[in-house]
Amino acid sequence: MREVFHQSLEDVQARLVEISELVAEAIDKATRAFGTSDVALAEEVIEADDIIDEKAIALDELAIEILARQQPVARDLRIVVSALRVSASLERMGDIAEHIAQLTRMRFPERAIPRGLKSTFTKMGELDVEVARQLTELLRTEDHSLIDLIRNADDELDELHASVFEKVLSDSWKGEAAATVDATLASRYHERFADHAVSVAKKVLYLSTGDWTTVDSAVAGQPGGA
Amino acid sequence: MREVFHQSLEDVQARLVEISELVAEAIDKATRAFGTSDVALAEEVIEADDIIDEKAIALDELAIEILARQQPVARDLRIVVSALRVSASLERMGDIAEHIAQLTRMRFPERAIPRGLKSTFTKMGELDVEVARQLTELLRTEDHSLIDLIRNADDELDELHASVFEKVLSDSWKGEAAATVDATLASRYHERFADHAVSVAKKVLYLSTGDWTTVDSAVAGQPGGA
Repeated sequence: MREVFHQSLEDVQARLVEISELVAEAIDKATRAFGTSDVALAEEVIEADDIIDEKAIALDELAIEILARQQPVARDLRIVVSALRVSASLERMGDIAEHIAQLTRMRFPERAIPRGLKSTFTKMGELDVEVARQLTELLRTEDHSLIDLIRNADDELDELHASVFEKVLSDSWKGEAAATVDATLASRYHERFADHAVSVAKKVLYLSTGDWTTVDSAVAGQPGGA
Repeated sequence: MREVFHQSLEDVQARLVEISELVAEAIDKATRAFGTSDVALAEEVIEADDIIDEKAIALDELAIEILARQQPVARDLRIVVSALRVSASLERMGDIAEHIAQLTRMRFPERAIPRGLKSTFTKMGELDVEVARQLTELLRTEDHSLIDLIRNADDELDELHASVFEKVLSDSWKGEAAATVDATLASRYHERFADHAVSVAKKVLYLSTGDWTTVDSAVAGQPGGA
């Protein structure tokens, strides 16, 4: 019985890692599609999001089944509850990758990246891909040193996000309204993606401490979002 | 023991209703502050968001304690798991109210509502307040007829959201970049708020059916978001 139970927990973890890998792939493709106006690649991301959603639902069902059948306590209970929270965040991250792909498709054959912001968005995309890969590794290994890396990347993304608004609101900005809208949305999506990664990192930290309040002070500065 | 348990479940429900009431108050004040550039009211919303966050964390702790101590099964288990999910959505809704308040504060003493979009944003604000109140009632009564009302309001908000972009991207739009940014963000916030409400409604429906897949087909068309 205990063995069956620990197999279930390993299954939960393996599925989280799998979903996180799909999210990393989605954001990688989405940012490449966004950067190069590759509408076929954008379509791939949009289609693949259904798979992420389905896998998140299946994981939630497994977690609820474990709660019902095996009635875990202590750390085991925390693992299952955290899995429910993490899957929700990963699913949102997949949605954001899809939104970036949708922006690409919406503007095609025009470029979705507003003129003058190419290097900023390239950097934002790279950071998001990096964050998604670190998150996968964190879920696989629970290596806490990755939490700081994710947090640092999130800080950098917050700064880039602020710089997009500075640029758009400066006198030198010559973009049309469409470019302003695209810059605003794309920047917000990139920034939110990393927020969710920090949120998952907090949940992994919670697994170790069992205390949300210490987690909140340890991983500070996650700006709320929509 | 069973009685203690049912008291705990009632406590969970009462706390969800309480948080939902705070969210309804927050979005009401936030949209009034946004409409009238009332920066004092905006500050109130920003400060009160900490209370929503704390109450959501406390509720999650209670839910986890119930899972550990009382090991609920069947419908009772679903109630507790749903509470964890619902509290996360309510917390995000509170964050969104805060963001709308922050937009108001950021533009003060200028108006945050871009010229030409006042009636649209007034309507969006009214719909969000209505949705938040219906959601509180749904959590209190589990009256499923409210789910359709919430879904209809969400559809209306999606249309208004699309109309904001139409306006901003039309030739007649004379707004500066700041107005375009504000319109984009404010519209997205208003639309996302109702998305989260639909998401909570789905969780309430799940309580009755126990099946996420039927829920997904019953409450269709929730656009993914960030």
